[in-house]
Amino acid sequence: MTTAKSFVEVGEREIKKLPTLRGKTIVNLFYEPSTRTRISFELAGKRLSADIINFSEKASAAAKGESLKDTTRTLNAMNINAVVIRHPYPGSPYIVARNTRARVINAGDGCHEHPTQSLLDLFTIKKRLGYLKGLKAIIVGDIFHSRVARSNILAFKKMGMEVKVVAPPTLLPAQVEELGAECSYNLAEAVSEADIIYLLRMQTERQARAFIPSIREYVRYYGLNRTLLKKAKEDVLIMHPGPMTRGVEIESDLADIPQSTIVEQVTSGIAVRMAILYLILSGDESE
Amino acid sequence: MTTAKSFVEVGEREIKKLPTLRGKTIVNLFYEPSTRTRISFELAGKRLSADIINFSEKASAAAKGESLKDTTRTLNAMNINAVVIRHPYPGSPYIVARNTRARVINAGDGCHEHPTQSLLDLFTIKKRLGYLKGLKAIIVGDIFHSRVARSNILAFKKMGMEVKVVAPPTLLPAQVEELGAECSYNLAEAVSEADIIYLLRMQTERQARAFIPSIREYVRYYGLNRTLLKKAKEDVLIMHPGPMTRGVEIESDLADIPQSTIVEQVTSGIAVRMAILYLILSGDESE
Amino acid sequence: MTTAKSFVEVGEREIKKLPTLRGKTIVNLFYEPSTRTRISFELAGKRLSADIINFSEKASAAAKGESLKDTTRTLNAMNINAVVIRHPYPGSPYIVARNTRARVINAGDGCHEHPTQSLLDLFTIKKRLGYLKGLKAIIVGDIFHSRVARSNILAFKKMGMEVKVVAPPTLLPAQVEELGAECSYNLAEAVSEADIIYLLRMQTERQARAFIPSIREYVRYYGLNRTLLKKAKEDVLIMHPGPMTRGVEIESDLADIPQSTIVEQVTSGIAVRMAILYLILSGDESE
Repeated sequence: MTTAKSFVEVGEREIKKLPTLRGKTIVNLFYEPSTRTRISFELAGKRLSADIINFSEKASAAAKGESLKDTTRTLNAMNINAVVIRHPYPGSPYIVARNTRARVINAGDGCHEHPTQSLLDLFTIKKRLGYLKGLKAIIVGDIFHSRVARSNILAFKKMGMEVKVVAPPTLLPAQVEELGAECSYNLAEAVSEADIIYLLRMQTERQARAFIPSIREYVRYYGLNRTLLKKAKEDVLIMHPGPMTRGVEIESDLADIPQSTIVEQVTSGIAVRMAILYLILSGDESE
Repeated sequence: MTTAKSFVEVGEREIKKLPTLRGKTIVNLFYEPSTRTRISFELAGKRLSADIINFSEKASAAAKGESLKDTTRTLNAMNINAVVIRHPYPGSPYIVARNTRARVINAGDGCHEHPTQSLLDLFTIKKRLGYLKGLKAIIVGDIFHSRVARSNILAFKKMGMEVKVVAPPTLLPAQVEELGAECSYNLAEAVSEADIIYLLRMQTERQARAFIPSIREYVRYYGLNRTLLKKAKEDVLIMHPGPMTRGVEIESDLADIPQSTIVEQVTSGIAVRMAILYLILSGDESE
Repeated sequence: MTTAKSFVEVGEREIKKLPTLRGKTIVNLFYEPSTRTRISFELAGKRLSADIINFSEKASAAAKGESLKDTTRTLNAMNINAVVIRHPYPGSPYIVARNTRARVINAGDGCHEHPTQSLLDLFTIKKRLGYLKGLKAIIVGDIFHSRVARSNILAFKKMGMEVKVVAPPTLLPAQVEELGAECSYNLAEAVSEADIIYLLRMQTERQARAFIPSIREYVRYYGLNRTLLKKAKEDVLIMHPGPMTRGVEIESDLADIPQSTIVEQVTSGIAVRMAILYLILSGDESE
């Protein structure tokens, strides 16, 4: 919670550019296309005066050449200070971390985890509601392919929140119960109890399995619309990690109502990533 | 004209790097390939000490995901100060401008406009000839697909110049007369009266219509060559927005004679874009 | 040798960020994919406080548009200070150098040369062994397609070293003898006399000729393995320009033994490129 508090402080102050990380080098090592997260980390780093090196490669192309282990050792030999890694294979941040003295931040590894998203989500909820403990969150959509779902179940539970995941049966893996989340196929029922409705994007580019509902079916049974929202608490928060597909997981204009935190989450992202970079890199004069 | 004068001042001073925009963030949002314009804006911003974030995406890929409106709102939530947008769809800068508090610069929208090109062209002419009013400019080539043609007709007319467009009939849209330009199919005749010969690139990548002349026909009737140039005034300016195709719109070595401003236009581009960024971003402490 | 000494000095000092090149602009003009060399130059430039502009294009795409000569003139008109060029065509750095006042650094031109690699290799050897003159180096592998081989033969000979190239006959061009290198097809014999074993990557992406050995044959006759290494001097250096393919040119874990300088070469690369940028750009106030 003290860490969360320092996030708030860094986020609230109206800072333009701080010299804190001058002379530090951060490499954005992105093996999956990303604009939102890459730009968020790049901005966070630049606002702290760090030097940012962008490196984007398709994992398929990388597979033909150097291994992730050797790429990491190469970067390590260049005396960089932090690596922000996004990679399609779960666990790849650990390979990076084992092969470098640089600090490593997981910016999303396959369908596994996306921890900075969870931190910015917690930050946004705390800013809006003032507390986290006891809040009831429902996470709706393609749980199966979502690293955000996995990270948020863990993070929300850790902060004392209750979590229910709501999804079509074929997109709801049994393991989420082991993570401490309840499961439901019924969105209407779940919406009525929720303090937070957390919507996920249908990751059609990852969905290789049969029995996936069509977009039309999905919208009908799992899309958030005005009729459903009437059953919810008046001050419910509507959250989404972005990019959202208006008209699928959310009725288009619901994204812009006061209950929606979708744009606010982006702003939180910069503050939280500045806080993370600050915490792991400042005062680190040893290397 | 006062703005044009401040351009000159900024351009003439031999400045290496000014701290004027330290702490400001400019996003280069490019949905079309561009090197010349992107690098020009990146250099202009960096010479004023701004932080530059490059974002390039194929519009086709973007179409599958987030809308330009939502991308803009995301950037807006990141508290950036300016967006430089190039996009294949006419009017897209207006979509961006309506969804952000950041200042928006149109770096070319489809076949519509390219206003910073016009400003750097005016700046170049003024620097060479000392005045603009009353000058006769001919704009030669693929008018139909050229955002530069459209912007320059408007800009040249606004500064009191006379404008004639010269093009094969199928590349000469009727609307240019509404913009105040005369039309001609006869390059030889037009060249003899001109103070400025402004050549355009054949945009073969955009030309989807039939009845487009072949490159061979184009060179024969609309390419500038030494024989034609003998009919022109001795101190005529030869201009081109680049990239040029030597041997098509211009006989190869004519690009390098003293009357050519082609390289000078590039230098003007940095000065003019520095001036634009300075004018729209400095003293802007409100956000 | 005085230059080499200044490299050492710059490399040895534990510098984070120097203001030496503040206000200078360096363009990384890369027409071939590269991460290692591009990031090395970008880091070297940023640690000296230069502004770095990255420009990557496929040579094939560039071929359709502007010539390298005109691209260079455009960059020249932007008053940049240095161009780092990588290009698939041998000699392209000379085209760049003839068309700009900026300093030009060859970061690899086709199968021709890669001089900064040679400097960082010499720097690494000198750092390890203390001297260069009289050392015996063998360069093993795809000599035919290797710009590193060509540059290193010249550089090693210049510093008074003996050089023998070892390769399958079809990857060993006759011209290397003109450069002053001995030739051999027998790795075992060559290894036993060497102070330095310099391994090259099989450049399968460039190999368009018939009669190239299969990877299996290559590993068997020209891959470095423990059995071969037993015939070598105890303090032999194992070098590689990277990226290496573990299991092909080198038995996987040999890359990580104390004799290997592979990771150290990367660190040297930053120091050497900082030194080069410093030497060609500092004190250069004229332009």
